[in-house]
Amino acid sequence: MNYPIICKILGRVMALEAVLMVPSVITALYYDESVLWYVETAAVAAVLALLLNLVPLKRHDFYAREGFVSVALAWVLMSAVGALPFVFSGEEPSYTDAFFEIVSGFTTTGSTILTDIEGMSKGILLWRSLSHWIGGMGVLVFIMAVLPMSEERSMYIMRAEVPGTSFGKLVPRIRTSSAITYLIYIVLTVILIILLCAGGMPFFDSINHAMATAGTGGFSVKTLSIGYYDSVYIDVVVSIFMLLFGVNFSIYFLLLVRKFKDALTDSEFLAYFGIALGAAVLIALDIWDEYGGFWHAFRYSLFQVSSLMTTTGFATADFIYWPAFSKSILILVMLIGASAGSTGGGLKVSRVIIFFKSAAQEIGKQINPRRTTSVRLNGKTLPAATVHNTLVFIALYFLLTFVIVAIVSLDGYDFETTFASVVSCMSNVGPGLGPAGPMGSFDIFSDLSKWCLSFAMLAGRLEIFPMLILFSPAAWRRR
Amino acid sequence: MNYPIICKILGRVMALEAVLMVPSVITALYYDESVLWYVETAAVAAVLALLLNLVPLKRHDFYAREGFVSVALAWVLMSAVGALPFVFSGEEPSYTDAFFEIVSGFTTTGSTILTDIEGMSKGILLWRSLSHWIGGMGVLVFIMAVLPMSEERSMYIMRAEVPGTSFGKLVPRIRTSSAITYLIYIVLTVILIILLCAGGMPFFDSINHAMATAGTGGFSVKTLSIGYYDSVYIDVVVSIFMLLFGVNFSIYFLLLVRKFKDALTDSEFLAYFGIALGAAVLIALDIWDEYGGFWHAFRYSLFQVSSLMTTTGFATADFIYWPAFSKSILILVMLIGASAGSTGGGLKVSRVIIFFKSAAQEIGKQINPRRTTSVRLNGKTLPAATVHNTLVFIALYFLLTFVIVAIVSLDGYDFETTFASVVSCMSNVGPGLGPAGPMGSFDIFSDLSKWCLSFAMLAGRLEIFPMLILFSPAAWRRR
Repeated sequence: MNYPIICKILGRVMALEAVLMVPSVITALYYDESVLWYVETAAVAAVLALLLNLVPLKRHDFYAREGFVSVALAWVLMSAVGALPFVFSGEEPSYTDAFFEIVSGFTTTGSTILTDIEGMSKGILLWRSLSHWIGGMGVLVFIMAVLPMSEERSMYIMRAEVPGTSFGKLVPRIRTSSAITYLIYIVLTVILIILLCAGGMPFFDSINHAMATAGTGGFSVKTLSIGYYDSVYIDVVVSIFMLLFGVNFSIYFLLLVRKFKDALTDSEFLAYFGIALGAAVLIALDIWDEYGGFWHAFRYSLFQVSSLMTTTGFATADFIYWPAFSKSILILVMLIGASAGSTGGGLKVSRVIIFFKSAAQEIGKQINPRRTTSVRLNGKTLPAATVHNTLVFIALYFLLTFVIVAIVSLDGYDFETTFASVVSCMSNVGPGLGPAGPMGSFDIFSDLSKWCLSFAMLAGRLEIFPMLILFSPAAWRRR
Repeated sequence: MNYPIICKILGRVMALEAVLMVPSVITALYYDESVLWYVETAAVAAVLALLLNLVPLKRHDFYAREGFVSVALAWVLMSAVGALPFVFSGEEPSYTDAFFEIVSGFTTTGSTILTDIEGMSKGILLWRSLSHWIGGMGVLVFIMAVLPMSEERSMYIMRAEVPGTSFGKLVPRIRTSSAITYLIYIVLTVILIILLCAGGMPFFDSINHAMATAGTGGFSVKTLSIGYYDSVYIDVVVSIFMLLFGVNFSIYFLLLVRKFKDALTDSEFLAYFGIALGAAVLIALDIWDEYGGFWHAFRYSLFQVSSLMTTTGFATADFIYWPAFSKSILILVMLIGASAGSTGGGLKVSRVIIFFKSAAQEIGKQINPRRTTSVRLNGKTLPAATVHNTLVFIALYFLLTFVIVAIVSLDGYDFETTFASVVSCMSNVGPGLGPAGPMGSFDIFSDLSKWCLSFAMLAGRLEIFPMLILFSPAAWRRR
């Protein structure tokens, strides 16, 4: 392992975090709040950045394991320091709670410990929303877009940080790819801010909700989430934008370079919208009676499906009171998640497609053992290693879920609450069911559970392997 | 597809089922009950056997798909006819209920629709227990042990009916293997009957409970299950024998031919007992206070772990009132299940081992992409196809579980009840949680759910592929 180079990367991450305090400082000044908490945090980050940068670099070798380890450590360190404003402000005095809250932010989960959102400082609220926005597209992807880094190093880092089975470069140079991705991301976010303001949402709320939507995070500046505004226009705009941010960003790039056919016939893209609409219709039919009409029911079902499938986690309805069938569909779309290469979480639609094709192939192979099998996606044969990795990933995902459920269940909540909360954290959704439901809080859990759930959120966001590799002795061995 | 040969095999299955009515007839005569129900069922089975045997056989080709389809259809037909005694007797007048009950019997699940077990005819109770005993080791394996069949045909059938990733022949000839397996099975069952009688359990009860234990089924002749006898001796004997029937039967063969080292160092064998004991100790620590002492708690935890891990489903404690941590451990061992080549269900310990090794390999491969990977079990390298099949199986298992949960949740029971009932049926355990718990009944579910759960039980017992192949157009195409 090339430790010095990892220190260099972590140093850059700390420098970025110091800079990320600026928006909160501006907000605090505008609302006449204390800027001290953010300045202190920025100071800690800056000192760490300097110290990490002092480590002398001997070699430049950088391979897959350096990529995984630096990404995993970058996220843990970002969270460890990012928790400080909550502690310094005294608004979340327990470090465990603060760590949970900021991990929930960076991983775009959106589960919160807080119960009185409206009573928080504006600067703190903005920091929560900004953590979603940065975490959604990736901390290191951002750094790569801004600072120069060797192609090989960038590739290994992208592979570890960008969700999905295969990471597709938009253009030959990775740095340019990152920059284009972030540009699309910024443009979409700005459009959303304008649309929300146009719908009568206050400017500060619009910025926060737009960043939380873009990162498919789910933190809100209102306890009642988007439901607070009770506006059909806002519901529809947010529903659509949540779905848009759950699309693989390379689709937008294809649209920009006018490759419309490639974009609109992409298997994952079609399956993603198909599943979302199908689920929304099924639920609307199930809750029709309660909401007195299909379209009224559809407004709420579409919002909740978009929110949970893209793993954003905003709510306009307290779906813990919905019938069990609807709840099962919601858990199913939560598990499937959004598209690869988007800001959303979950298993990812492309993995689910690969799994289904792989299962069909396996059934074919059982019928005719001599048949050679291969899984095709978008007209191309997938490498066997990709299929294998996908299957291991899916099985690991379920297994890790069950292990964490076993630990969290020590708290003694009912099975539904425990199970849904863990799945929600693993998939980076946010709200669970029961007392941790969309109008509730994760404050009910013990410290042990909060640490486990923080681990689940990081494992879910970084797609398990980087976090598990941290515990693998092979990764730490000298070459 | 060679349809005539499948008809021939189904004919044999029907002939066997007609003969299987004899024990119930004898019981009915002894207890002075009506024999008519069993005679009528035997007549239906005999007529079907004759009709199926009339189909002229043109070719003798028999391959994997014929093996899967004949096993799947044999189980469905056995159940369709086996449900008749319940209907004819009027003790379970609904055909849906009767079908669910006998599928639960043959698949050794042990979920019941009945609420007043003690009020049933003795002949019917014996039929329920006998269905466990026959289903446990396999209907077609039994036929192969008794009637001559070509080696190739036997191999494909064994592969489809015997649980586990790889089917190991004990001796070169498959027919002899089946016969040896059944002999070990009979001897163990008889020993158990004697031990239970020695413990003061009435003879009729002993026969029934021994057959249900041997098949790892779980139907009891008492509503309170084994808990009715409230005897430490019986609890311990049944706990141990449940665990013994969850062992791969090839281990017993190895012991018989004095290959002690091979038997006792088998990875699955060691992992199986390790998991069972570990889980029992963890639960005993969790329920210590409630039961006032470790050993008293351990008596109940060991019984429940043995019962759920081997997927038998007997109960001596109403574990729905146990703490959530214990319930999570129970669900975990339910999922893992027993050993391959045993009468138990679940994912099977060997699959879980293969999965863990495969995941470790994958992590290694992520760290060092150039590394070639292979999974070893018991010192031998597993074929890549076996590992692939295992991963697809595990993912399919979870997926099918979630789909059936979504359908069953239409009944509107809480998530814990729905989820545990489906997992219980898929893993062929028996009791769920909530109102379908160990002291409850599956009568609470709708007809649609009962059919879905019947499908889940068959899919679980036959390890998914045979049941899915029934729905694959490729299987039905003429060659």
